[in-house]
Amino acid sequence: MAKPVAPRGLARERVLDAAVALFAEHGVHGTSLQMIADRVGVGKAAVYYQFPSKEGIALEVIRPCIEDVERVIKIADGLPDPQQRRVVAVSGLVEMVVRHRRLAVVFYGDPAIDALMTSDPYFKAVNDRLRELMEGPDRSDVDRIGFSVFCSGVGRAAADPELADIDDADLHRALLELFGRILTPAVQPSQP
Amino acid sequence: MAKPVAPRGLARERVLDAAVALFAEHGVHGTSLQMIADRVGVGKAAVYYQFPSKEGIALEVIRPCIEDVERVIKIADGLPDPQQRRVVAVSGLVEMVVRHRRLAVVFYGDPAIDALMTSDPYFKAVNDRLRELMEGPDRSDVDRIGFSVFCSGVGRAAADPELADIDDADLHRALLELFGRILTPAVQPSQP
Repeated sequence: MAKPVAPRGLARERVLDAAVALFAEHGVHGTSLQMIADRVGVGKAAVYYQFPSKEGIALEVIRPCIEDVERVIKIADGLPDPQQRRVVAVSGLVEMVVRHRRLAVVFYGDPAIDALMTSDPYFKAVNDRLRELMEGPDRSDVDRIGFSVFCSGVGRAAADPELADIDDADLHRALLELFGRILTPAVQPSQP
Repeated sequence: MAKPVAPRGLARERVLDAAVALFAEHGVHGTSLQMIADRVGVGKAAVYYQFPSKEGIALEVIRPCIEDVERVIKIADGLPDPQQRRVVAVSGLVEMVVRHRRLAVVFYGDPAIDALMTSDPYFKAVNDRLRELMEGPDRSDVDRIGFSVFCSGVGRAAADPELADIDDADLHRALLELFGRILTPAVQPSQP
């Protein structure tokens, strides 16, 4: 076995870039380690040397998103008011999704990613806390459903080919405006 | 080869029921005709006799949903006012998704279903017209993004295990209320 020629960091990036391109074309289920190795132009053993499994590669690809969300949670948790925490959580989620829009296109609705997100304890903990923050403390059924609609919708909108002509800044603004509309009754109590 | 014992209609129902159960467990990609035949307790040839392919079975499973949407489109298209058409389209979509909630759980986010929906000309035409009706005539970017968020969110909410305790009537009411909030500025123009 020859040792990798490139520095370890560089080789990892090449594997991750190739994996994202292949996931976009074939989904995670439809992509093999061999396909990733072929795309990078190395042997399968060289990929194994970096990552133990295809799922490990997918986890590494989405890890920056989860770390962004973790940072947003820390910022939100530092605030005293639940409504402030909620606003920070929503704004942070929108910023993260728009910034990683290319990944949303790759991963939106991929059941392999859904399975990873619920099976990895760290990812699941971050996701559950985000949900609590966004739903707020006195969550009604409409709030819970609104959270579900908005969270899946943010990823969907970022990934939607019909919206590819809308630039990132406009998408960001529009998503925040939409969430403001969804939340208005909660933020400005007006229900009987 | 023995002829099918059950009448054709009955056998079709049994195949479709078995397929839905397996799609829920394994996704469409992860389900084979052999698995469906095993679940029904017949040979693979008996399933082939009814359906030429796994995709054909998936199409038959979602066909009632698409036919419901087509009916909603006919009702909407009979109305003179674009805002009325929009309200009918949204209400009809929500009613359909809630009524077929079990299928939403099976199919939400399944890339095999997304591919079927865009490759079948009839399904694609129905979907495109629904989108036009819901976005309305003078669609802004926010309206287009709102449509995308809401449409994916309706299916997500119906499928969300975290919302399984909310009954169908409450889910229906809440989704309509949410869409009302999303659309409020369009229905009651208040922007500068």
